[in-house]
Amino acid sequence: MQMPQPNLAILARKDRIVARLQEVLPQDAVIHDSAETRAYECDALTAYRCPPLAVVLPRSTAEVSAVLRICHEEGVPVVPRGSGTSLAGGALPTADSVILGVARMNHVLETDYANRLIRVQTGRTNLSVTGAVEADGFFYAPDPSSQLACAIAGNIAMNSGGAHCLKYGVTTNNLLGATVVLMDGTVVEIGGAHMDAPGLDLLGVLCGSEGQLGVVTEATLRILPKPEGARPVLIAFDSNEVAGECVSDIIRAGILPVAIEFMDRPCIRACEDFARAGYPDCEALLIVEVEGSPAEIDEQLARIAEIARRHNPVELRESRSAEESARIWLGRKSAFGAMGQINDYMCLDGTIPVSSLPYVLRRIGELSKEYGLDVANVFHAGDGNMHPLILFDANKPGDLELCEAFGAAILRLCVEVGGCLTGEHGVGIEKRDLMTVQFTPEDLEAQLRIKDVFDPQWLLNPAKVFPLEATASRRAA
Amino acid sequence: MQMPQPNLAILARKDRIVARLQEVLPQDAVIHDSAETRAYECDALTAYRCPPLAVVLPRSTAEVSAVLRICHEEGVPVVPRGSGTSLAGGALPTADSVILGVARMNHVLETDYANRLIRVQTGRTNLSVTGAVEADGFFYAPDPSSQLACAIAGNIAMNSGGAHCLKYGVTTNNLLGATVVLMDGTVVEIGGAHMDAPGLDLLGVLCGSEGQLGVVTEATLRILPKPEGARPVLIAFDSNEVAGECVSDIIRAGILPVAIEFMDRPCIRACEDFARAGYPDCEALLIVEVEGSPAEIDEQLARIAEIARRHNPVELRESRSAEESARIWLGRKSAFGAMGQINDYMCLDGTIPVSSLPYVLRRIGELSKEYGLDVANVFHAGDGNMHPLILFDANKPGDLELCEAFGAAILRLCVEVGGCLTGEHGVGIEKRDLMTVQFTPEDLEAQLRIKDVFDPQWLLNPAKVFPLEATASRRAA
Repeated sequence: MQMPQPNLAILARKDRIVARLQEVLPQDAVIHDSAETRAYECDALTAYRCPPLAVVLPRSTAEVSAVLRICHEEGVPVVPRGSGTSLAGGALPTADSVILGVARMNHVLETDYANRLIRVQTGRTNLSVTGAVEADGFFYAPDPSSQLACAIAGNIAMNSGGAHCLKYGVTTNNLLGATVVLMDGTVVEIGGAHMDAPGLDLLGVLCGSEGQLGVVTEATLRILPKPEGARPVLIAFDSNEVAGECVSDIIRAGILPVAIEFMDRPCIRACEDFARAGYPDCEALLIVEVEGSPAEIDEQLARIAEIARRHNPVELRESRSAEESARIWLGRKSAFGAMGQINDYMCLDGTIPVSSLPYVLRRIGELSKEYGLDVANVFHAGDGNMHPLILFDANKPGDLELCEAFGAAILRLCVEVGGCLTGEHGVGIEKRDLMTVQFTPEDLEAQLRIKDVFDPQWLLNPAKVFPLEATASRRAA
Repeated sequence: MQMPQPNLAILARKDRIVARLQEVLPQDAVIHDSAETRAYECDALTAYRCPPLAVVLPRSTAEVSAVLRICHEEGVPVVPRGSGTSLAGGALPTADSVILGVARMNHVLETDYANRLIRVQTGRTNLSVTGAVEADGFFYAPDPSSQLACAIAGNIAMNSGGAHCLKYGVTTNNLLGATVVLMDGTVVEIGGAHMDAPGLDLLGVLCGSEGQLGVVTEATLRILPKPEGARPVLIAFDSNEVAGECVSDIIRAGILPVAIEFMDRPCIRACEDFARAGYPDCEALLIVEVEGSPAEIDEQLARIAEIARRHNPVELRESRSAEESARIWLGRKSAFGAMGQINDYMCLDGTIPVSSLPYVLRRIGELSKEYGLDVANVFHAGDGNMHPLILFDANKPGDLELCEAFGAAILRLCVEVGGCLTGEHGVGIEKRDLMTVQFTPEDLEAQLRIKDVFDPQWLLNPAKVFPLEATASRRAA
């Protein structure tokens, strides 16, 4: 992956830039020693690394504003960073950039149960948002796999989803308001604390904009009452296509489970070897979870079982206890770890219309043969967010490149059936060059113009999202 | 309410403009005879009337595009119109404008149960969207009171809600994609058919933009599985404040009813006289509806009753049959008609944080005494969308103006407690001059700039939303 040349004039001014940052931040909040900046050289897409010029770790919106004002005046690019769990390189530094990490901004500012909301600093981790309200019977719905580590800032930047977003929507459906610092240091409030916030709704534009438009420092999030209970059923099939059809039929019947997770044979086998969850020997496995009162759970599971039986499942195992539920989820939740045990892998992230699931799975199988690389499929099937894991050997020359080419082919397939390049990981640097597959030059130009309005000097999160050639003239200007 | 002077040069060119429109539309789709254009001189805010230059009734996106291209070339303002049910004058013509009515564009283009969506032309009425899918067990959630008549086009323009939006969200939460024709005739697709549509999310900016940015001709809407059943409970209190506190406590307890409707004494009395629903003699009445399986309904109603009893209700009447449910809703659903029987009234629409309900109700009572006009409160209490009805006498000179001043005071109160000028009716012409109460000059300028981008000549839906003085320089340019 090509990165732009660093601006040498900025590197030459490093001491002065660091000194100015130290004027507005406490001593421990500016990291500039090259041994220490190394910790920020990559995010979870570890194949690409580059230490930044410096790292700042502000504690408030006012400090973020002061940092951005200085960087704006000095013409220094800024890479906003949540917890650095991006799988798409969304927080990869350039050598001439300052990393603005929000990890120390992790306070709960307000909980308001009567209005069903919580206001937090965006460095707070996803799971600890729920942690702050669960004793009172509430939870924050979006649940990315990395929820123990990932920050709300990153969730907003990537519009993160999770296993439960089939029922509850993704971040954009649960974000009510945001405090945003623009590149020139201006602090802007978007949205508000309740349902009909005044003015045009710019939250949608902000959410999923991958740190291109501003730095979100505080967020007002919708919290929901915790359901009384939840229970999964495990359904095994002897073909991917039939499992895909079963998913479509469940949705079509008007049932809305909390989650429908899908695993194919390579994934099932790896999980089983790793976690010993007792998964059956089969081609495809669905975990369908429903929630509500005990009576409602029984009724929904009965309807799901009836639909599944029409597709002749190899096995249908309804959980009857909390232990059994945990065992059913154990394999799925350790899927990524399991794959990492047996292979190097690249985790993709694309979306497709749910109804094209069977076709897409068949095509991925064919592509796997063409490229000679195995692929394990584990994904949120209910809403069509796929996470194919391509297995490769990092020590074999050319295998990473082959893997990237295979990944690109799968993402092109997603676009071809009417889906899109990214569900929740973002474009980052990973899918930058595939943007032209999804968008016409006119579409891209419209997006670049929105960036122009928010960040006219193109200093925020450089080299992400847009193809480098498309942004070269803008960065030069 | 002041309206801008019509552009006389446009009036002088009427024949030519009509002739050009007739070139691209069938004979019956262009109305220009002044006896016939009169039917379009107002919407549901009937206090303000002005016949348009002409009316066009296209049948397709292509025809809408052709009309807008001509109007753009001729510099003629265009007022998009759904079913004309706006209570805020959102579709009020100016004398030099062409009304673009989408009523004939009412087809279902696609139903797709596997992906839980329906695609319709936006002239289709709200209720007939559900009508198209209910036999298969689905429904479209937003349910404005006018749902029998109002069009999806207007729902999108105003971001309409309804009694059920507490649980299901408003239009913006149920809109997946839109085909939009810009003022110069360009056809643009925004969003898509599934959850993670590619690109920056402009649906939020579009939804609720009151026809200022483009004409939405087709919409992809999320449909939901119909719940198994629903049942209301009626709870009567001897004070507005206590009823408001009960609402806050229900939400705070983590219960999420489908609807919490609130009526105060003047409203209850009028409804009872009109509909004989058997409402008790009390100060404030809540109708709380829950849904789910029978067991779940029982359990939720039991918890609500427990919370309500702590507030010493005058009466608590749980429905035990479909007939009783219908009777409980009968009064509420006839509230507007009932008020119309006894008085002229103006229906307001503002939002407040749910937690400030008791304070706001008390202040409205005080203002009512100050202005010497009665007010009846009926509103969606669960999400803080208020609809105070101010009673006045249209035949008494000065009473309409007094009523408007009282209404403005109530809306200022909404803004003061952190709410906003409009929940679902829109700003239209009604609240145009109150925008400065909600927004600073900088906020307004930012909104004007967004309008500049979509409609540089300021031809779409003139004289709505923004204070006339704020837009004068733009329209002159």
